[in-house]
Amino acid sequence: MPKQSSKDIKSLIGERVRELREARGIASQEKLGELASDLHRTFIGRVERGETNISIENLEAITKALGVSLAEFFKPFNQK
Amino acid sequence: MPKQSSKDIKSLIGERVRELREARGIASQEKLGELASDLHRTFIGRVERGETNISIENLEAITKALGVSLAEFFKPFNQK
Repeated sequence: MPKQSSKDIKSLIGERVRELREARGIASQEKLGELASDLHRTFIGRVERGETNISIENLEAITKALGVSLAEFFKPFNQK
Repeated sequence: MPKQSSKDIKSLIGERVRELREARGIASQEKLGELASDLHRTFIGRVERGETNISIENLEAITKALGVSLAEFFKPFNQK
């Protein structure tokens, strides 16, 4: 079985959402959900755990709530 | 009815995919689809017309085929 060379995009997004949420002082997934076009806290939880192949509209809502552009959101990802 | 202040994310993505596809000299949507984890040409067509709330995994496949990172892909979008 080939070794996976890097984390998948869903996990990278999950870690980035959690990192930015905590950096913004948004304490709970529920609060972020409220800020992001009223997404449900369980959905935010699945995103942060890398379980969701998120749509671009929902990701845009989350990044707006986090106060970053999509380009800024993806900047640390370093993939090609 | 409030005037829409900017194009929606689906349209922005569609224009950017088409722009990069043409800049890369990938003549057809079919060819891009083959390069992008075998996505169907009709799917690429819907993406380029801004009709698809694309998932991040499919968008990642397309950006890889176009040879840009997600951060580079979103750089011109200028949203917050």
